Amino acid sequence: MNEVVTKQDTQGCHIIDNQRELTTRATAVSRILEPHSVAVIGASASPSKRGYQIIKALQKAGYQYPILPVNPKGGSILDLPAFKSIDELPDGVDIAVIVRPAEEVPDILLECGEKGIAGAVVVAHGFGERGDKAAATEKRLRDALAESGVRIIGPNTSGMLNCTVQADLIGLPELPPKGPVSVLTQSGNMILTVLEDSRSINGPGFDVIAGLGNQADLGYDELVEELGRRTSTGAVAIYNEGFLDGRRFLEAAARVSQRCPIVMLRGVRSDEGGKAALSHTGSIAGADDIALRVLPQMGVLLVDRSDELLPIASLLATTPLPKSQKGIAVLADGGGHATLAVDALSRAGVPLAVLSEDTKTKLRKVLGEEASVANPIDVYSAIDAHPDVFPECIEILASDPEVGLILTTGMYGAYYLRFEESLREAENLAADRIVTLQKATGLPLVFHSCYANSKPENHDILRRGGMQVFNSLDWAVTGSKALFERANWLSEQASRKSTLVPEVSQVAVPSGLSAETSARQMLQKLGVDTGVWRAAGDAASVESVVSQFATPCAVKVDSAAVVHKSDVGGVRLNITGELAQRAANGIADAMATHSPPVTNFGFIVTPMVNGGAELFAGATNDPVFGPVILFGSGGVLVEAAADVSFRAAPFSPDDALEMIEETRVAKILDGFRNYQKVDKRLLADFLSKVSHAVMNMKNLSELDINPIIANESGIYPVDVRLVGK
Amino acid sequence: MNEVVTKQDTQGCHIIDNQRELTTRATAVSRILEPHSVAVIGASASPSKRGYQIIKALQKAGYQYPILPVNPKGGSILDLPAFKSIDELPDGVDIAVIVRPAEEVPDILLECGEKGIAGAVVVAHGFGERGDKAAATEKRLRDALAESGVRIIGPNTSGMLNCTVQADLIGLPELPPKGPVSVLTQSGNMILTVLEDSRSINGPGFDVIAGLGNQADLGYDELVEELGRRTSTGAVAIYNEGFLDGRRFLEAAARVSQRCPIVMLRGVRSDEGGKAALSHTGSIAGADDIALRVLPQMGVLLVDRSDELLPIASLLATTPLPKSQKGIAVLADGGGHATLAVDALSRAGVPLAVLSEDTKTKLRKVLGEEASVANPIDVYSAIDAHPDVFPECIEILASDPEVGLILTTGMYGAYYLRFEESLREAENLAADRIVTLQKATGLPLVFHSCYANSKPENHDILRRGGMQVFNSLDWAVTGSKALFERANWLSEQASRKSTLVPEVSQVAVPSGLSAETSARQMLQKLGVDTGVWRAAGDAASVESVVSQFATPCAVKVDSAAVVHKSDVGGVRLNITGELAQRAANGIADAMATHSPPVTNFGFIVTPMVNGGAELFAGATNDPVFGPVILFGSGGVLVEAAADVSFRAAPFSPDDALEMIEETRVAKILDGFRNYQKVDKRLLADFLSKVSHAVMNMKNLSELDINPIIANESGIYPVDVRLVGK
Repeated sequence: MNEVVTKQDTQGCHIIDNQRELTTRATAVSRILEPHSVAVIGASASPSKRGYQIIKALQKAGYQYPILPVNPKGGSILDLPAFKSIDELPDGVDIAVIVRPAEEVPDILLECGEKGIAGAVVVAHGFGERGDKAAATEKRLRDALAESGVRIIGPNTSGMLNCTVQADLIGLPELPPKGPVSVLTQSGNMILTVLEDSRSINGPGFDVIAGLGNQADLGYDELVEELGRRTSTGAVAIYNEGFLDGRRFLEAAARVSQRCPIVMLRGVRSDEGGKAALSHTGSIAGADDIALRVLPQMGVLLVDRSDELLPIASLLATTPLPKSQKGIAVLADGGGHATLAVDALSRAGVPLAVLSEDTKTKLRKVLGEEASVANPIDVYSAIDAHPDVFPECIEILASDPEVGLILTTGMYGAYYLRFEESLREAENLAADRIVTLQKATGLPLVFHSCYANSKPENHDILRRGGMQVFNSLDWAVTGSKALFERANWLSEQASRKSTLVPEVSQVAVPSGLSAETSARQMLQKLGVDTGVWRAAGDAASVESVVSQFATPCAVKVDSAAVVHKSDVGGVRLNITGELAQRAANGIADAMATHSPPVTNFGFIVTPMVNGGAELFAGATNDPVFGPVILFGSGGVLVEAAADVSFRAAPFSPDDALEMIEETRVAKILDGFRNYQKVDKRLLADFLSKVSHAVMNMKNLSELDINPIIANESGIYPVDVRLVGK
Repeated sequence: MNEVVTKQDTQGCHIIDNQRELTTRATAVSRILEPHSVAVIGASASPSKRGYQIIKALQKAGYQYPILPVNPKGGSILDLPAFKSIDELPDGVDIAVIVRPAEEVPDILLECGEKGIAGAVVVAHGFGERGDKAAATEKRLRDALAESGVRIIGPNTSGMLNCTVQADLIGLPELPPKGPVSVLTQSGNMILTVLEDSRSINGPGFDVIAGLGNQADLGYDELVEELGRRTSTGAVAIYNEGFLDGRRFLEAAARVSQRCPIVMLRGVRSDEGGKAALSHTGSIAGADDIALRVLPQMGVLLVDRSDELLPIASLLATTPLPKSQKGIAVLADGGGHATLAVDALSRAGVPLAVLSEDTKTKLRKVLGEEASVANPIDVYSAIDAHPDVFPECIEILASDPEVGLILTTGMYGAYYLRFEESLREAENLAADRIVTLQKATGLPLVFHSCYANSKPENHDILRRGGMQVFNSLDWAVTGSKALFERANWLSEQASRKSTLVPEVSQVAVPSGLSAETSARQMLQKLGVDTGVWRAAGDAASVESVVSQFATPCAVKVDSAAVVHKSDVGGVRLNITGELAQRAANGIADAMATHSPPVTNFGFIVTPMVNGGAELFAGATNDPVFGPVILFGSGGVLVEAAADVSFRAAPFSPDDALEMIEETRVAKILDGFRNYQKVDKRLLADFLSKVSHAVMNMKNLSELDINPIIANESGIYPVDVRLVGK
């Protein structure tokens, strides 16, 4: 291994830690995110230069490992000896911060690679964002990346920060407190936002913060995976404006989410590129709709508001999970906040715990006979002079097996501010007691207090005990919901693990539209039952095919040249024996008189299905997330109904059931007025099989099964359209 | 008038202001909300008693008018001479704060009434909330209210506060700053929330804050109306858990909203009482759904989150309105916040302004040739050392006629914190310049800064200039949306004023279900065209009625005893001449064999309508808001479709058009695949007429017109059901 000894130990820096090199430091990415040596390429003695500020910031932050300035002039910069070239650097440096202009970066990377430097932060912009020159520089950058093997963050990034080793490569006025929240963001301003928000809420602090910039090399997938490996990271907060490879991110997220929560705020939602291009369903499958479903499928917790990213990530990073399937207990002092909490939880779909009679009896002993103890629990009449009722109630609630999480709301912790200064000590003691209780029970406790921004000292007692106290009740509710969502996701993952992608060799979808019979054959080959149908090669043989069915049939043209069969006279319904010939001739006539005439066609005959809900299933090859399955209300009004759910393929029948329940049409499938009850398990199995089939298709562009008629006796795919790239 | 002279002028209080009595003080409610004299009934010399704290709080707040303690022992309380009885008080006192127990309150009110006291704040609880004794006390309270004529706030209220006259009847540690936000709330905790939130955001301050308590007398309607009259109130923030008379509130809100914005957070949304009781539509007309539409109809701006009530009300209270139909310009420093702002505005439905080429050219001069100036405008490359680019850009944008509002987002005002302390002065000057610009142009300016919680001094320059700077981008977006909503509402109101309720005498709806012919007759009498239909008294005459139509007909039983005609064999479709007799006989047979038999019936004959969208219109007499009209997707799947909008009746065709556009089915009405385009004006006119008809029905319980078939040739009410109370 590299022998690395620098001469800087005399200036307060340590010898580069060889031991660590030799044992735990497996990957370049891990060395980048926690560098034990930093070279500054473009170091400067001029305080206005970034190459000075970076070194200053590292020193100010108390970085304990070698800082290695590189400047052709040599000499000393901020009391550190400068190396005249990269080549002069000791071997095995973890990261280089490159603050030289864009044009110089490719050559610098090549030199870094020769010197065995693991990674670099490239600050410069001017790569491909605008203009020919930038595009040429970007080309050189990519070549240098490939040749050197150096992994980079950026270019056009505001930098990276690791609070554990006090490495501030961003250049902040002060290092934020060390804690469990890691952050990945494309926008430098969002780094400032999370830092400021953390200061506002006395957040639990940060592990690693990285600005991804243009993602010329390292993207969300690799970085989140590495953060997920860090035991010092308790949650990853992501601000994302799009993925270079969404499918790889999904795979990484699914792995990371097993251990570490990912909380994501998404940008560029309103006109994100890459709308799904299904001809029937393009208007119902916006990229945002897809992302909103496939990311949570992988355990990613989405937030809609920029003001919630840091608070919710902080809560997830510090709070144990509730047992799934349990409910929430709301502990409030006064009706208003109790009411608002229950309303917001109800809208968020988080169930209230049904308290046992025993619990209620115990609560009444503390709160008085007339107190509201049915959940929400109102401590109103008992609290003002006795802050201890809070830990007393929490202790009682924690012993109720139906309680998965306790949300305290109101003016918790501010009785000494609002009423009597003399309550200060009692409130501090109550907080101490809650910390002890929390540790003993492991129960998640979430706090809202309308006085949180006044920072009562007892709130900080709770925070030091690992809890969050929010000024916004809405954050407390969103956060509680996220905790339950994560608990449910983890428990579902455990039960769904058995679903594996079947080993079927890849089948190529022919370019363009397939004839319906070919489409059905391909689906059947890949394990999807498309029901009873027969092909008839010509008009003359239709009658004999129809006669094989005991019921009236649909007779349709079967051709790769006809996109919408009914629009061109290519469909006849309710055909029985004697009418079959006439129907086939009619269709043939319509094809002949079509402009341009359709010459290459046959017929497909299916039995008529009488009555049932009209459903839709489809697949698209999403440019961001890859194969995605759509399901919802079907028929000609599919776009107008706008009733569709999404999942990344492949998925299990359990996932499919969840997908079905997300649609409005699910209500009709339960049996509704003159609609019969449909076996949702059958439908879920069908959707799961479609999702696996799609994974085994090469060059899929789109698949439309619309309508699918579903009734008491089964699931009938009435029309199938398959398009290859 | 009352001659009121007190002896307290020697103790720093003023003589009660007779002049004001004689001229401007018209109503008891205005005297209650801005009292120029306060009697404290139950005054006490003991610091632990509320009757002491109230006086102390008034003195501490600097209340400049007479404080009149009443205590049977007389003597002196907090240096004020105490009156031994109410009778001894000077005449014409504005308000009495009654801090005596519930049982004593009724008699005290009677004494107050005899003494000409305008109003009272009743703090005690124990009125009707729980138990027989409380119910008896409440009865006595109501009698005393009726007899005395004294108007009260409460009981069970935390009190009232007027910052203009520095009257703190709540007993806060300190009086909040005086400003334009008034607050009405049922929950005392929500008073603390808005006070704390205002402190957090350096809010513009308060005019009047009132806790409504049990609303035994004064409710939201009268109080909001009085606040709307106060020129010192710029916006009313309401926390509401339900109305005693929602209809009266709607009427008051519509008046107040003409001048003064009302921002409302609603509680008890998840299980609010009084679900609409339509037999077909009960499940789609939850009280919350209705409230969500009828309140904005009257100009009320709803917020969903408790953390937004105070910020949004503050913005509305201080910010001029954009011109309606204009767009928003987003001015950002860096891509992240620009992107997030545009996303959030897009989701909120607020349009971006399309900037003129002239504007873009001017912006490029300031920001450089490569800057993004297409809206969002990104100052990124130009800003760091030049805070003046903000006022420069604002000046340019303000001169573009398409810009209705400018939203600034990012790290505005914190460059001196983030980069160079030396920028402090330049940022202050930039803020001064923005204040001057705002005053000169009158344009609404909304600010987000991720550093707002660090309270840069230049933010306070903007605040003193009447602007709001939020730490949350989401608040800035919600607030901007509210400003546009209000501007649009006001401009629509202006154009809709001509719609008056027609002068039709009230028609009583018979109790229970009406026969369909009677229902149609009643609607027609009240101005609603229900289309072509004929009655046939008996089966024998059906054939001749059917023969009057050129088209096939629907023949249906016509009876007040049949709720669902088709469920009992009472409907035959597509009937032509020769089949009419058989159809009629069949229906008659079904009625005879029904259990119990239907004896009293006739027939109704309507021409078949072929093809079209199935719509639904209905009316309910909402227990909270009175007559409400429902419109949406119709047919048998009406509940499953869950596609319905609501308006309080009566309303204009323009309102109805808006109502139609809120449904998903509106898309189909524009012509969609095999559905023909429908004349929405015709439909809107129909709905407006139904809304007026309903206003003229006495004892209406519910009206269902479902389905209404709508196609290219018209609007056809296919089935009509009317139920009286």
